[in-house]
Amino acid sequence: MSLAQQVQHLINTKTKPAGALGRLEALALQLALVQNTTAPQIINPQVVVFAADHGIAAQQVVNAYPQAVTAQMVHNFLQGGAAINVFCNQSRVGLLVVDAGVNAVFAPHPKLVDAKVAMGTQHYGQGPAMLAEQLAQAKERGQQVVEQLWKQGCNTIALGEMGIGNTSSAALIMHQLCGLPLQACVGLGAGHTASQFLVKQQTLAQVAQFHGLGATHMPAEALLQRVGGFEIAMMFGAYLKAYELGMVMVIDGFIATSALLCAHQEQPAILTHCVFAHGSAESGHAAMLDFLGAQPLLQLGLRLGEGTGAVLALPLLQQACAFLSQMASFESAGIANA
Amino acid sequence: MSLAQQVQHLINTKTKPAGALGRLEALALQLALVQNTTAPQIINPQVVVFAADHGIAAQQVVNAYPQAVTAQMVHNFLQGGAAINVFCNQSRVGLLVVDAGVNAVFAPHPKLVDAKVAMGTQHYGQGPAMLAEQLAQAKERGQQVVEQLWKQGCNTIALGEMGIGNTSSAALIMHQLCGLPLQACVGLGAGHTASQFLVKQQTLAQVAQFHGLGATHMPAEALLQRVGGFEIAMMFGAYLKAYELGMVMVIDGFIATSALLCAHQEQPAILTHCVFAHGSAESGHAAMLDFLGAQPLLQLGLRLGEGTGAVLALPLLQQACAFLSQMASFESAGIANA
Repeated sequence: MSLAQQVQHLINTKTKPAGALGRLEALALQLALVQNTTAPQIINPQVVVFAADHGIAAQQVVNAYPQAVTAQMVHNFLQGGAAINVFCNQSRVGLLVVDAGVNAVFAPHPKLVDAKVAMGTQHYGQGPAMLAEQLAQAKERGQQVVEQLWKQGCNTIALGEMGIGNTSSAALIMHQLCGLPLQACVGLGAGHTASQFLVKQQTLAQVAQFHGLGATHMPAEALLQRVGGFEIAMMFGAYLKAYELGMVMVIDGFIATSALLCAHQEQPAILTHCVFAHGSAESGHAAMLDFLGAQPLLQLGLRLGEGTGAVLALPLLQQACAFLSQMASFESAGIANA
Repeated sequence: MSLAQQVQHLINTKTKPAGALGRLEALALQLALVQNTTAPQIINPQVVVFAADHGIAAQQVVNAYPQAVTAQMVHNFLQGGAAINVFCNQSRVGLLVVDAGVNAVFAPHPKLVDAKVAMGTQHYGQGPAMLAEQLAQAKERGQQVVEQLWKQGCNTIALGEMGIGNTSSAALIMHQLCGLPLQACVGLGAGHTASQFLVKQQTLAQVAQFHGLGATHMPAEALLQRVGGFEIAMMFGAYLKAYELGMVMVIDGFIATSALLCAHQEQPAILTHCVFAHGSAESGHAAMLDFLGAQPLLQLGLRLGEGTGAVLALPLLQQACAFLSQMASFESAGIANA
C-alpha cells in the first residue's frame, strides 16, 4: 500500500462518516505526503515578514501611503503593534522580521534579521529594479533565513511582506508569469481613489512595455531583476529552499503568491508543499490562484499582507494533523460503521 | 458617539489600510456590540454536544448508521476519541456532553450531563415525537446547561449534536420554518446511496403531510413537539438562554442551525449574537443560512456535526477580539496614514 493509500485508509476509518471532515481530510493527506509520514505534525511554525522599499514608490504615484511607512511598519513589527504580531501571539506562532532592503537603518533587535541588499530598489521605469548580483544576494539570503529556521526545528513556514509599492511589482510579475492582461493584474493595493488607480494602471503599463513583459518567455530571475522587489526576491529564494528542505509552506496573499509564481516557474513541484491560506480581496489574487490550480482555505476579504492570512489559516493545518493522529477508529472505539 | 461608531473608529485607526482585515473587522464590531464594550473577549469558550435518539431511526430507513451509534459515539466523546474532542483539545476549548435522550444508560462521567428526557423520541410517522411536557422539559434543561456555564464564567458557546436520524428532524423543521419545498431540505445526512436517499425523501414527505407541515404557521414549540428531537429541543432552549444572558453563540452546521431556526422564530433578535461558523456540505444548509441572511466564516465542506465546524471557526473570533484590543493605532505607532 502506498503512503497515500495508508493515510486515506486511516482517514476513512476514523469515527465519522466518510468524507465528513471535508477539506480537512485532503489537507491531512497533503501534509502527510509532504512530511512522508502517516502522522504529520506542524512543528515550531514560523512567520517571516520580509520588508523592502521600492524605487517606484518614492514619487507616490503607484502607492497610497508614503514610502516611509515601510520603515515605520518595521518598527511597529518590532514593537509588537501590527496585526501580524497580534495574530502570531494569539496563535503562539514565532515571528521574524527581515530587513530585505528598507530605506532606513535599524538598530539591532532580537526579532530582526539584517539581510539588507540596498536602501530599496531602483525605480524600474527606466531600468532594472536591481542588479543581477543584488538578485542573487536576495535569493541567497532568503534561502539562508529558511535554512536557519529549519535547523532550529521549524517544519512549517509562512512568508509575509511589507513594502510600500509592492503590489505594483506583484502585478507586473503576475502579468508576465500568468500570461494575463495587465488590467487583470493591477488592483487597488492598500487603497486608491479611482483617479489614482488609473495613474497606477497607466504607469505600470509603461513599465511593462519598457521591459517587454507579456510577450515572450522570461526566466523568473530575469523578471525579478527587472520589476521585482528585494522582499519578493528573498521570498522567492525562501520558498525554493523550504521546498528543498521538505517544509510545509502556508501561502499568504497577493504579493506572497507573486513570489511563489517565480519559485513555481523554477520548480513546478513546489506546489505539493504549499497550502494556500486565503483568497485576498486584492483583485488579481483570485486569477493567480486559478493559474496555480490552488483553492484557498479561507475567504475573508483580507488584503493586508504581513502573513496575516497565513496565520489565520494555520490552526486548520494543526487540526488536520490532530484529527489524523488522535481520533479513534471505528474499531478502536467499538462503533458500528455504515 | 454610539458604541458602534466608537468601535468602528478604533478599527479604522489601527495600523492597516482601512478595511484590510475584511470580515474580521465586521466580526470584531459584532462581538463588541454583543458584549457592549470596545474590548470584547472570548472567555472560557465551551462546546456543548447534545445527544439523543430518534424513534424514526430505529427502523434504519432514514439513517445510514444504526441507531446504536448514538450511544457508541457518546462513549467515544467521553473517551476523547471523536473529532470534537481532538478539535477542542487542540484549541483549548471546554467540552461538555449532554445526554438529552439517548437510548442507553451511561455511568456518571465528569464531562457528561444527565439531562435525559426519555430513551429517545417516538417515531413521528403516526404521532408527535414527544409530549408537550417533554418538550418543556428539554427546553428548560437546555436553558439550565447554558446558565450553568455562564455562571462558571463562560461568555461564548458553540452547540453541537449527535443523534442518528437527526438530519430528518432538521429537514422537516427547515421545511416548515423556511417555507421551502421538502426536497430542498432533505439531504444525504451521514451518507446514503441513491435508493436509500429516495426512501428518506418519500418517508419524510409522508411525515410532513401527516403533520400538516409547509402549509400554515406553526409555533416553533408545536413544530419541535411534532418532529423534533430531544437534542434539537434542548439546543433551542440553550440558544434562547444564551441570548438572554448576552452570550456569543457560534453556530455549527445543519442540525444546529435547525435548532436556531426555532429559537429565531421565538426571538428574531437572537441573530445579533450569532456567528455562523461554516457552510455545511449537507445540501439544505446553504438555504437555511440564506433564510437567516447569514454568511458563514468558513466553507470547508464539513458535514460532521458535533460542533466541529464551530470550533474550527473559533480562532477567528479570538483573533478579531485580539486585533481590536492589541493592535497599535497609526498615532500610537507614529505611522503616516494615507
